[in-house]
Amino acid sequence: MIPTITAFEQSPDRGQGLARDMPVRWALEEVGQPYDVRLVSFSAMKEATHLALHPFGQIPTYEEGDLALFESGAIVFHIAERHPGLLPHDANARARAITWMFAALSTVEPPIVQREIARYLEYDEAWYEQRLPILEDRIHGRLDELSNRLGGAEWLDDAFSAGDLLMVQVLRRLNGSSLIEDYPNLCAYVARGEARPAFMRAFDAQLAVFTGKPSGRSEGKE
Amino acid sequence: MIPTITAFEQSPDRGQGLARDMPVRWALEEVGQPYDVRLVSFSAMKEATHLALHPFGQIPTYEEGDLALFESGAIVFHIAERHPGLLPHDANARARAITWMFAALSTVEPPIVQREIARYLEYDEAWYEQRLPILEDRIHGRLDELSNRLGGAEWLDDAFSAGDLLMVQVLRRLNGSSLIEDYPNLCAYVARGEARPAFMRAFDAQLAVFTGKPSGRSEGKE
Repeated sequence: MIPTITAFEQSPDRGQGLARDMPVRWALEEVGQPYDVRLVSFSAMKEATHLALHPFGQIPTYEEGDLALFESGAIVFHIAERHPGLLPHDANARARAITWMFAALSTVEPPIVQREIARYLEYDEAWYEQRLPILEDRIHGRLDELSNRLGGAEWLDDAFSAGDLLMVQVLRRLNGSSLIEDYPNLCAYVARGEARPAFMRAFDAQLAVFTGKPSGRSEGKE
Repeated sequence: MIPTITAFEQSPDRGQGLARDMPVRWALEEVGQPYDVRLVSFSAMKEATHLALHPFGQIPTYEEGDLALFESGAIVFHIAERHPGLLPHDANARARAITWMFAALSTVEPPIVQREIARYLEYDEAWYEQRLPILEDRIHGRLDELSNRLGGAEWLDDAFSAGDLLMVQVLRRLNGSSLIEDYPNLCAYVARGEARPAFMRAFDAQLAVFTGKPSGRSEGKE
């Protein structure tokens, strides 16, 4: 059965692959699972039909037969649990990979998203310039710790896992910012993630929604 | 094998049970798993020994034989996966419960924690009074959506699960605030969680660390 995910009809990031369908597409591509995409408008996301699938009126959702899920982290985990390739077989290594999934979303992402929210919603406020360094200090704190743990390793815990997938996707929000450029090992880590063929197929597929030109590289169906 | 978790030596919330050892203690109590607790000071959390367990220098950690985990969400999931009582047997219901775990930590918690951060760190800033309504609007948005989804149900998806455990624990951060008092069904939901014997044992155990008086109710060992 081919699952159906939802994505933005109009990409707010102009196809940079930062919307939350991206990690789900990437996970599906990593495990070789074809998928269908249903595009939703910003207004349709807040209507009853979509809210029945996603109580917080966002994307992505994931439908597969009788099952309907939301939350990109939960969907990536669902895919990782049902297909080989995103979680190690060894029980302890698997638990550590899941730990990195939660760390990406609960510990590393929030300060990064807070800076984005401030840039979008508080840019014209008198306090914006004063708050920005506070927000960036919080991000630096997390990146210091993450960089120290990663050290010279290729991935966070031996082989590439769903934990790396989510962490790379979180760190990509800082691409082009000096915040991450201070950490060469984190930049190289993100680049390794972005160089994976599955990442590139997923990226092209979401970009094709923005450009209106279907991608030839995706294994999924749009 | 009895696992060991870490908790704050000095509770920053004076035993209100908002520190992140609380959901782990609660999960362990729900499944009847005894545990040991190692208390760590704020300075010890940033030292190499603790950073080896928790790269972000926080609590809780979870040690069980060769396995070392961090991130309260991941630890709760680890406990829920290995013991009956926190995840449904039905595969689809299980996936939905895991979705609520991620929703609690990734979607509902961040705006609540942002308000706390502002209260602690920006209370004396000139912009604090102006920003507070913005922060509270974001929380209201999430609570509106969560309240609509919960409706008159007892728990988020049929039986109590690890998703409810994490969601109740997130909402408890708003106890005593008018923010949640506007939602009688969410208040009743939190009260149902707090009335569970396992919650009460976990709460007493963490409170005993603050008061210095061992709790008789906990099944865990301190």
